[in-house]
Amino acid sequence: MTEFIPPASTFIELPSPFVMRSGESLHGARIAYETWGTLNDAKDNAILILTGLSASAHARSSEANPDKGWWEPMIGAGKAIDTDRFFVVCINSLGSCKGSTGPASINPATNETYRLSFPNLTIEDAADAAAAVLDALRIEVAHTVIGVSMGGMTALALVCDHPHRVHNLIDISAAATALPFSIAVRSLQREAIRLDPNWSNGEYSDETYPESGMRMARKLGVISYRSALEWDGRFGRIRLDSDDGNVDPFGMEFEVESYLEGHARRFIRDFDPNSYLYMSRAMDWFERTPCLSKVDLDNALVIGVQTDILFPVQQQEQIATLIAASGTPTQFLSLPSPQGHDAFLVDYARFSPAVGDFLKNL
Amino acid sequence: MTEFIPPASTFIELPSPFVMRSGESLHGARIAYETWGTLNDAKDNAILILTGLSASAHARSSEANPDKGWWEPMIGAGKAIDTDRFFVVCINSLGSCKGSTGPASINPATNETYRLSFPNLTIEDAADAAAAVLDALRIEVAHTVIGVSMGGMTALALVCDHPHRVHNLIDISAAATALPFSIAVRSLQREAIRLDPNWSNGEYSDETYPESGMRMARKLGVISYRSALEWDGRFGRIRLDSDDGNVDPFGMEFEVESYLEGHARRFIRDFDPNSYLYMSRAMDWFERTPCLSKVDLDNALVIGVQTDILFPVQQQEQIATLIAASGTPTQFLSLPSPQGHDAFLVDYARFSPAVGDFLKNL
Repeated sequence: MTEFIPPASTFIELPSPFVMRSGESLHGARIAYETWGTLNDAKDNAILILTGLSASAHARSSEANPDKGWWEPMIGAGKAIDTDRFFVVCINSLGSCKGSTGPASINPATNETYRLSFPNLTIEDAADAAAAVLDALRIEVAHTVIGVSMGGMTALALVCDHPHRVHNLIDISAAATALPFSIAVRSLQREAIRLDPNWSNGEYSDETYPESGMRMARKLGVISYRSALEWDGRFGRIRLDSDDGNVDPFGMEFEVESYLEGHARRFIRDFDPNSYLYMSRAMDWFERTPCLSKVDLDNALVIGVQTDILFPVQQQEQIATLIAASGTPTQFLSLPSPQGHDAFLVDYARFSPAVGDFLKNL
Repeated sequence: MTEFIPPASTFIELPSPFVMRSGESLHGARIAYETWGTLNDAKDNAILILTGLSASAHARSSEANPDKGWWEPMIGAGKAIDTDRFFVVCINSLGSCKGSTGPASINPATNETYRLSFPNLTIEDAADAAAAVLDALRIEVAHTVIGVSMGGMTALALVCDHPHRVHNLIDISAAATALPFSIAVRSLQREAIRLDPNWSNGEYSDETYPESGMRMARKLGVISYRSALEWDGRFGRIRLDSDDGNVDPFGMEFEVESYLEGHARRFIRDFDPNSYLYMSRAMDWFERTPCLSKVDLDNALVIGVQTDILFPVQQQEQIATLIAASGTPTQFLSLPSPQGHDAFLVDYARFSPAVGDFLKNL
C-alpha cells in the first residue's frame, strides 16, 4: 500500500479527534501543503488553493522540490497569482493519497492501512480540513480562496460553512450540486475499479493491484475532461506506426488511443484506488445550492468553460447567480476554451488574465 | 452462440461470393429486412432506412410482428415517413447479429460460428450490401435513403460508391469521418469487452459470457448518447429507495445509476459482443469526406443535434457543406433537442416535421 507524496512535502496536524460529518472521527490526521511567497505581518495576503481530485499540493516548483507543479504557469513572481504580493498555500485534499490522510494512510488505532474502514468522506470534511489549515497557519481570514473542479466544490463548502475565513472567492469549473450526468460518469469509473477482481473490496496490494479497473477509470476520466472538437485539431485521424501497433485485432490503431493509454499508464500506479473511490463519491454527494445565496464575501469570480461536458458552463453560471443573490459583487466568465473541463490546466492564455486581473483589482 | 433475430424477419440472399473491401469473401450471406407500405408499379416510391449500430430491421410494428419498432412514431399511414405514399424498407446492417450475416452467424464453409474469423468489416461493405438489397427487390433507384447514426455513415458510403441508386438523402446525426473523440469512446467500449476474461478472444459461450464488459460498454454508450443538462431535468438528484439500494459501500445510490444499469441489463444478452466489436471498429475506420462533394443527388437533408457530444453538430454541418459543393440542393437543420445523439429516437416533436416536411416537398 503506497501513498504518493511529493518530495519535500510539509504537513499540518489536524485537531485530534477530527470529527467528520458522518459523526466518525479521525485521530492524528494530517494535511499536506506547500507554500510560495511570504505571509505578511498583517497576515492578510494569503491565497488558499484547493485542487481537483487527482492533484497534489505541488502546484508549483520550489527550491525544495524543483519538479514542475500542476499549475506552474499560474503561480510565481509577476504571474497571475503573484508571489511577490501573495502568500500562496496549496493543500492536498483530505481523503487523497498525496500526503493528506485518506484511505491509503495508516490508521493509528490499528497500525493498519484504513482502506474501506476510512470514514465516509464528504466535500464538507475537506472544507473543514482546509479551515483547520488556516487555523494552524494562524491566518484568521485568507485574502482569497481559489478552487478548481472538485476543489471548487470544496471552496463553496468552505465559504458556506466557515463564514469570514476568506474575503474573496475564485471558483473555477466547479458545481454547486452534482449533475446526474457527472454522477453517471463517476459511477462508471468506480464500477470499473470495483469490477476488477484485484480490487478485492479494497484489499489489494502492489502485487495484486486493480490495474485494469484504474486504466478504464482514468481513460473515461480523460475523455470526459476534454471535448470532441479539440481532439480533432490535435489528433485528426493519425494512425500509429505499425511498429507501435497492436497485433491484437481490436487493439490500438489511432494516435488518440495511444494518447489515452499513456495518460492511463501514468495514473494507474500514481493514485490509490480506494482514495479515488472515496473522493469520487464525495463529489456525487455534493449539493450546496441553498447556502450560496447567504454567503458573506467581499468579491467573487466564477469561471466556466463552454466546452466542458462534465461540469457544463450552466453550472458555473448557477453558482454566480446564487452568490450574486447574497449581495456579493460577482463576476461570471464563460470562456470559449476548446479544452473542456481541463481548460484551467491548459489554456493559460485565457486563465492567466482572468485570474490575474481579478486579483489585481482587489 | 445466439443471434437475436426479431420474429417474422425476412431475408435477402447476398450474391455469393459477396466480396468485401478487405478482399475476403462471404458465401451464402444474407441481409434481414422488413417493409411497410407497397412498392408501386413504377418502383419509384421506395425509402431505404439504414440503422444505428444496435438496431434491428424492425423499425415499426407490423401484422407479422406487432412489437413496437425502434422508430415506431416516424413510420406509418400519415406519419413523417408515410406508408400510404412510400414503400419503406429497413435493413439490418451487414455484420449485425439481428438477422444479417455477421460474426455471430454460422460460416457455411466450416459449419461453425464465424466469431473472429469473420472478415474485417467496413461501413462500405454495409453500403454494398444495402445496394444488393435494392437489386434483390428490383428497385433501380430508391426515392430516398435515410440513415441515422452509423446508418448515416452507411448512407454516405452508398451515395458515394453506388451513384444513381437513390434520388434523395436524409442523413441524421452521422459523420463523414470519425472524430478522435468518438474513436476514444468506442475504443474504450471495445477495451471493456476485450478485458473481460469471459470474452476469451471471441470464444465465449452463453454460459461464460462477457457480461461485465458488455455492461461497461453499454453504460458508456448510453452516457455518450445523451447530454448533461437533459439528465438534470429527468433525474435531478433523486436517490434510490434504500430497499433498492445496494449494501455495497460504493454501489448504486442515485436513480441515474439504476437507469444506466437497467439499460445495460437489457442490452448485455441482446447483442453479440463480437458483432459489437466489428461494427464499432468499422465506424472508427470511416473517412469519406473527399467523395461527398462529387455525389449526384436530387436533394439532401442533413440533420444534427446541438447537444450531441459523440457526433457533434459541426460534423453534420460539414456533411451538408460538402454535399452542397456537389451542386445538390441541400438543407441543413441544427436542432436544439436536449437529448444529444439519441434525439432522433426520442424527440419526435422535432424529428417528425423535419423529415416529414422534406419528404412532402419532394
